[in-house]
Amino acid sequence: MSTTRTLIRGGLVITASDETHADVLIEDGRIAALAAHGSAAAASWTAERTIDATGKYVVPGGVDAHTHMELPFGGTFASDDFETGTRAAAWGGTTTIVDFAVQSVGHALRDGLDAWHAKADGKCAIDYAFHMILSDVDESSLKEMDLLVEEGVTSFKLFMAYPGVFYSDDGRILRAMQRASVNGGLIMMHAENGIAIDVLVEQALARGETDPRYHGEVRKVLLEAEATHRAIQLARVAGGTPLYVVHVSAEEAVAEIAAARDKGLNVFGETCPQYLFLSTDNLAEPGFEGAKYVCSTPLRPREHQAALWRGLRTNDLQVVSTDHCPFCFSGQKELGRGDFSKIPNGLPGVENRMDLLHQAVVDGHISRRRWIEIACATPARMFGLYPKKGTLTPGADADVVVYDPHTEQTISAATHHMNVDYSAYEGKTVTGQVETVLSRGEVVIDRRTYTGRPGHGVYTPRSTCQYLN
Amino acid sequence: MSTTRTLIRGGLVITASDETHADVLIEDGRIAALAAHGSAAAASWTAERTIDATGKYVVPGGVDAHTHMELPFGGTFASDDFETGTRAAAWGGTTTIVDFAVQSVGHALRDGLDAWHAKADGKCAIDYAFHMILSDVDESSLKEMDLLVEEGVTSFKLFMAYPGVFYSDDGRILRAMQRASVNGGLIMMHAENGIAIDVLVEQALARGETDPRYHGEVRKVLLEAEATHRAIQLARVAGGTPLYVVHVSAEEAVAEIAAARDKGLNVFGETCPQYLFLSTDNLAEPGFEGAKYVCSTPLRPREHQAALWRGLRTNDLQVVSTDHCPFCFSGQKELGRGDFSKIPNGLPGVENRMDLLHQAVVDGHISRRRWIEIACATPARMFGLYPKKGTLTPGADADVVVYDPHTEQTISAATHHMNVDYSAYEGKTVTGQVETVLSRGEVVIDRRTYTGRPGHGVYTPRSTCQYLN
Amino acid sequence: MSTTRTLIRGGLVITASDETHADVLIEDGRIAALAAHGSAAAASWTAERTIDATGKYVVPGGVDAHTHMELPFGGTFASDDFETGTRAAAWGGTTTIVDFAVQSVGHALRDGLDAWHAKADGKCAIDYAFHMILSDVDESSLKEMDLLVEEGVTSFKLFMAYPGVFYSDDGRILRAMQRASVNGGLIMMHAENGIAIDVLVEQALARGETDPRYHGEVRKVLLEAEATHRAIQLARVAGGTPLYVVHVSAEEAVAEIAAARDKGLNVFGETCPQYLFLSTDNLAEPGFEGAKYVCSTPLRPREHQAALWRGLRTNDLQVVSTDHCPFCFSGQKELGRGDFSKIPNGLPGVENRMDLLHQAVVDGHISRRRWIEIACATPARMFGLYPKKGTLTPGADADVVVYDPHTEQTISAATHHMNVDYSAYEGKTVTGQVETVLSRGEVVIDRRTYTGRPGHGVYTPRSTCQYLN
Amino acid sequence: MSTTRTLIRGGLVITASDETHADVLIEDGRIAALAAHGSAAAASWTAERTIDATGKYVVPGGVDAHTHMELPFGGTFASDDFETGTRAAAWGGTTTIVDFAVQSVGHALRDGLDAWHAKADGKCAIDYAFHMILSDVDESSLKEMDLLVEEGVTSFKLFMAYPGVFYSDDGRILRAMQRASVNGGLIMMHAENGIAIDVLVEQALARGETDPRYHGEVRKVLLEAEATHRAIQLARVAGGTPLYVVHVSAEEAVAEIAAARDKGLNVFGETCPQYLFLSTDNLAEPGFEGAKYVCSTPLRPREHQAALWRGLRTNDLQVVSTDHCPFCFSGQKELGRGDFSKIPNGLPGVENRMDLLHQAVVDGHISRRRWIEIACATPARMFGLYPKKGTLTPGADADVVVYDPHTEQTISAATHHMNVDYSAYEGKTVTGQVETVLSRGEVVIDRRTYTGRPGHGVYTPRSTCQYLN
Repeated sequence: MSTTRTLIRGGLVITASDETHADVLIEDGRIAALAAHGSAAAASWTAERTIDATGKYVVPGGVDAHTHMELPFGGTFASDDFETGTRAAAWGGTTTIVDFAVQSVGHALRDGLDAWHAKADGKCAIDYAFHMILSDVDESSLKEMDLLVEEGVTSFKLFMAYPGVFYSDDGRILRAMQRASVNGGLIMMHAENGIAIDVLVEQALARGETDPRYHGEVRKVLLEAEATHRAIQLARVAGGTPLYVVHVSAEEAVAEIAAARDKGLNVFGETCPQYLFLSTDNLAEPGFEGAKYVCSTPLRPREHQAALWRGLRTNDLQVVSTDHCPFCFSGQKELGRGDFSKIPNGLPGVENRMDLLHQAVVDGHISRRRWIEIACATPARMFGLYPKKGTLTPGADADVVVYDPHTEQTISAATHHMNVDYSAYEGKTVTGQVETVLSRGEVVIDRRTYTGRPGHGVYTPRSTCQYLN
Repeated sequence: MSTTRTLIRGGLVITASDETHADVLIEDGRIAALAAHGSAAAASWTAERTIDATGKYVVPGGVDAHTHMELPFGGTFASDDFETGTRAAAWGGTTTIVDFAVQSVGHALRDGLDAWHAKADGKCAIDYAFHMILSDVDESSLKEMDLLVEEGVTSFKLFMAYPGVFYSDDGRILRAMQRASVNGGLIMMHAENGIAIDVLVEQALARGETDPRYHGEVRKVLLEAEATHRAIQLARVAGGTPLYVVHVSAEEAVAEIAAARDKGLNVFGETCPQYLFLSTDNLAEPGFEGAKYVCSTPLRPREHQAALWRGLRTNDLQVVSTDHCPFCFSGQKELGRGDFSKIPNGLPGVENRMDLLHQAVVDGHISRRRWIEIACATPARMFGLYPKKGTLTPGADADVVVYDPHTEQTISAATHHMNVDYSAYEGKTVTGQVETVLSRGEVVIDRRTYTGRPGHGVYTPRSTCQYLN
Repeated sequence: MSTTRTLIRGGLVITASDETHADVLIEDGRIAALAAHGSAAAASWTAERTIDATGKYVVPGGVDAHTHMELPFGGTFASDDFETGTRAAAWGGTTTIVDFAVQSVGHALRDGLDAWHAKADGKCAIDYAFHMILSDVDESSLKEMDLLVEEGVTSFKLFMAYPGVFYSDDGRILRAMQRASVNGGLIMMHAENGIAIDVLVEQALARGETDPRYHGEVRKVLLEAEATHRAIQLARVAGGTPLYVVHVSAEEAVAEIAAARDKGLNVFGETCPQYLFLSTDNLAEPGFEGAKYVCSTPLRPREHQAALWRGLRTNDLQVVSTDHCPFCFSGQKELGRGDFSKIPNGLPGVENRMDLLHQAVVDGHISRRRWIEIACATPARMFGLYPKKGTLTPGADADVVVYDPHTEQTISAATHHMNVDYSAYEGKTVTGQVETVLSRGEVVIDRRTYTGRPGHGVYTPRSTCQYLN
Repeated sequence: MSTTRTLIRGGLVITASDETHADVLIEDGRIAALAAHGSAAAASWTAERTIDATGKYVVPGGVDAHTHMELPFGGTFASDDFETGTRAAAWGGTTTIVDFAVQSVGHALRDGLDAWHAKADGKCAIDYAFHMILSDVDESSLKEMDLLVEEGVTSFKLFMAYPGVFYSDDGRILRAMQRASVNGGLIMMHAENGIAIDVLVEQALARGETDPRYHGEVRKVLLEAEATHRAIQLARVAGGTPLYVVHVSAEEAVAEIAAARDKGLNVFGETCPQYLFLSTDNLAEPGFEGAKYVCSTPLRPREHQAALWRGLRTNDLQVVSTDHCPFCFSGQKELGRGDFSKIPNGLPGVENRMDLLHQAVVDGHISRRRWIEIACATPARMFGLYPKKGTLTPGADADVVVYDPHTEQTISAATHHMNVDYSAYEGKTVTGQVETVLSRGEVVIDRRTYTGRPGHGVYTPRSTCQYLN
């Protein structure tokens, strides 16, 4: 078999740890070598295809560890399926997603996983993997966890919120954590005290507080912090099971995670662009516009953003994912007119993450290397995709983004590729844009033309967490 | 000009961020390229010299950011000069040291720096750089700070200990910090409340407590923690000046640093192998043997070690340096017989650091990548030597260690290369050994034969700190 | 109506705030006056009855705010009824108890309260009041809370432990707290994560760990601390409702309370003599003897005692009650042979509290005034009994103890007056003994002879908490 | 000898622990008895003098533990001498002051104490005692400390501020603390990092920042907090010496004290009315008016007040004193025109404290009993004056204030009795007013007429601290 070679010349290669002017040689879908630009070694290289990255960044493809394609929720489905959603991801410079397969109550994990495989198979523009949502922890599902870990589904999400839907009580959580501490699975936690929140929801509705902004008021900061603390303590009781808290939005929750980490515990925190760039001001937009911003954990008052950025800098938060879970304003979000609790929870974002975080570099919140670390390298390590994904090192999958750091673009539903009728960042201008994207060496975005295809993306089994202390 | 090429084949390349089976191509003293082992790209490479690293680690040369060659102290001089000390460093896999030039009270920084250049010039087996010790902060020395930063001496050490010698009061510390916040210098702090300690020393001696172990008792944990806290607050008052606390030894001091870092402050902590592997048990060895272990901050009770390891894992401590400052037991340490306060403060260690930290990998305290991070990459970034030093990336200096992770060795003064008549780790068996060392592409240790020479090592100016939030 | 006067002469009057050599004049069941001993005012007093307290302490009668007479639990009943229990209390220098009326699931608060009134009416040797246990929070019971507050039942206990029995979920807790923040009731909390504990119980039993000591192992310190934290956060969400955490036993729970109090929150902590004087060593006594010490929260390792004493000194813990809930070893505790989870939870203690806390004075843990504060004054204020109870001030009820601080006694089931066949402190020798006790001016213990009678004690309605910031 | 009796009838007697409608009988300058108002006992009392307190509060005379009469400072003297100052105190309901005798550098404690006795002797309207300021800690002064403790000067103030004047370095502080831990003296600390502050002062003046408001800017919150932390650590090193931090003004300093107290340390904090009611807004008043508010620690931004009130409620702060140290605006404060560092430091306040704290009761910051605790009872206990001073209990000195809680008054230099030409609270209207004041049974203010005399007040030796854990 002959070797196919692609060469990316002249860019600034940025990984989580290094910035170097280097040429990147790709052979057969993998990074074969990096050589100092202008070195004799680099000069000697030839390739079938050469991409000129002069003046551009060459970065690892993004890893979005939190998406919900086609998720059934509140009587409807997230509006992106695996085809539209992964294509949009590619447009946004993301080359791997980890989506959530869902166990239905009363059903096996296997049933849920099979269903998600069926949804994704042959559809994806980029590589994908699965977490598993545990909705029904019992002896049978605990045993299945072991099997799933062995076959590459190595992380399990539990909910302290949504009683009657995904909710697990503390006993079920403890059991799942105990099992994970043996089989090496990583417990992911939606940390909100849903039992208490449901009381506040009922009371708010009874008072006639039905607008979207009340969604933010009833899901209180203290109830996110409380649940975060509780999850940490349960993980300690379970023997020090690693714990990954999803979509951290409140300063007080960051503080709980920081305190745990100071003790040396394997506790991790993820936040999302919506918490970094949006706030309760958006939820309060008039005329039911706030519904566009309804997600859980909810958007917080603007003051919390500084704590999230600080947490990202101090590594008390390690990952930025999107929690991509789009619902059209028209017909979907509108289900909750007159009752905020009926608004489907979720925002679109898989296409915007890399750009928004580059904007954070421009704004001085984080460094370029940290950008790549929180968006590519750490999610890959956290979820057992390293070193295939998340970095540019010899032997890694050639998932590469040529990123133009200077172009300005304005985010808009008019131009985005997600299957949803609004953008959470409509009109926001950011500096920087994805130019060209390779997935395992194949060009899927070529100078802002989509050249990929459904089915290029393959299911990628994962090893266990590679980020532990 | 023709290119000289060296090729290191078949090893496991370990950096702070990656582990990859890669061949390393060196051209003209720099890393030219890394290629996946067995790839077509790698296979095509040829070189004048090929080093077989099969079954070995290929790691960046160590960066020891805290050495004191020939330091005058207590009426004598540290027993390693730049020739013996840097040769020993090379034996131990360290390819860069940052030594401390000393300002004498009443003299210019320049005088001290010139003196240290004179000591080092033409002597060193490996590359070196300088920090500056500020003993006399006044308008004149503050102005000199700016000049030194510009010429590559970008870090300045102050002492809260040693009244009458290196001591600066809080006003002088504040002034130096204010200046550093403008000129970009990094303030390094010996954080012990020397004024209070001197009272305790005097009282101990008056009670007839003259043995070395009393050195550990009077230099109390709370007085290290207090000074650490005070330095942090002064740095905040100075406008958020970055602060690097040297030789952190006490759990309570780690806690102060962790608390500062949780607030997002640029506060950093260094510890040393002696605090990780030795304890007050050593100071209490009978027959004046304890004198071998007298250094400041002092060794602590064994319980503190766990906090230091935890701090290294949580990145509340970022760097492990040696504070290499050897004094022979015979003739030097003996100056303090009958009065522990007259024992010259310091331990040998520049040769042992990389091995002891590899042992920490074997013992499970840290990962392999973290080993390289705390011993190579972070000290290089912290002190402005990146990316020349501390990593293996195209363009970096070819400071490379081929490390055998399996060989056992026993540390002993009988076999070490430091110019001192005892080893602080005498008889300790560790797994792993430096096999071959390259400094800017030149082999200085070749399969455990010294092939270097005085004067190969060059003075390396530094940029300002590259590790800030 | 003629006035009945009793005069207590020559003792050292100790209250929470003062120690003074004063004569105490009692008129018609109340403290009429205190006068400096030897003053003209004191000299002029005459009385029908004069008690010589020379060399003795004259202190307020104890207020035990946590007893469970005749509590149904685990298929049996606490072995003291209101007659035997209050007589034993009097013997021990306690002149007021606040017992817990129990709402049964599916029944009204009123039903439970009526039942407890029926149990107590005409039986008690000393005065008594009631808290209400909420087992079934719903709209109806929330409304009843308001009524009960008005008629003097002003505190409501909720359980985060005992799922299926007393347990309330976080939503019910939140609702009760919200109601209390309006009606002024004080929420008392059994803070243990019972849902998680039940998992651990089941697992322990499945492993064959059936001995009493496993009771202590499964009810983990972290699960007490977690629940304490959660209760505090829920109280904040409810609008800052005051919260009183019962039987705090773990250092980590004290820390949660201390942190809340540092924020200025109205959070209070009670501990009990068993946590101060006993430990898991007792639970581990061989031959099922450990069953005598089974209570929840459980006894903790001995190290926790120091934290509890410190909490009592720093006022992070405010009250020492007994949680008196005796079960005979024979026939009751034995229900749990072969299954620790079937051992009725509870210890006898109402007779021992004042003596054990005086021993703490002798041991140097607390001052004399603090003894009275934690055992008399604060519980009275906390539960709205002030100034009738808990102090010796003009106008207060003449509940007075003449206490001999010098006599030694040995605690034993052979000599105690509680209706239970063992003592948790069997064989322990303490210094100090109750000599004479007055309840509303009537002598119920006269130089260690019981002179009281069932029915002397009256039900005492309470105002709302008088201890708020 | 015949007995002189005074009777105060019908008031609400408020102490730190009780509120009771009681008549107070005074015999020979002491409280002889308290009897329930309307009781037979009370009814039987007769007296030479009867004061009708119906509708009024009857409270202990205030104890102001921090005054500086005639203090030499900045080339001038505090404008109140012991005659004018103690008369003003009496007007304000304060019946005991503890003033600071000053050791001059190079002189004996005895010299300073003798000088202060000479100033006070025969002048005072109310009782007084002395603390001792240590300006020159050496072997000789340490020995004198022991003697002073024995004769009733049991507290010693050290300064971390004012280098060259009162300043002690950490070694001297440590020595004094060590001595105090043996002789039982209480160390009082002015906690500000004066060495660092002097740098900031010099820099501010060099920038032309000469107005009074810069006084507040250079004496930074973090430098108060730092010094507070350091003093606490030194006290721990000295073996747990009790520590009383004077004039706490910053939230961050309160936090240091709270953290120490959570550990069970005997660390105490005092604040003053100026920090509770005034702020940097006052320092910024135009036209040099700010000079009226120059004191050290300085006034803080308004936000700090909430933390101080919270500290008073949580008992993290225990005492409110005045730090009364008046300088006339005209001729004295004016010394610092054009150079804020030359403004004499100090505010008048001895006359206003009880009223301002009563206003805090009206405003809901503290309860009535807490008012008496922080202003009377705790300072008396803290400084060894209990039970003579600070409470109303049989045997105590009859220092009694009849306080009208309803009258409104407006504070003004036009009506105050302090010898200073301005009031820090000019124009402030408060509710409540001192009506009648007794000092050891003698009426010194009689329904707002001064009936006292110089020399009535006597020197009162003190025992050691009675407030330790």
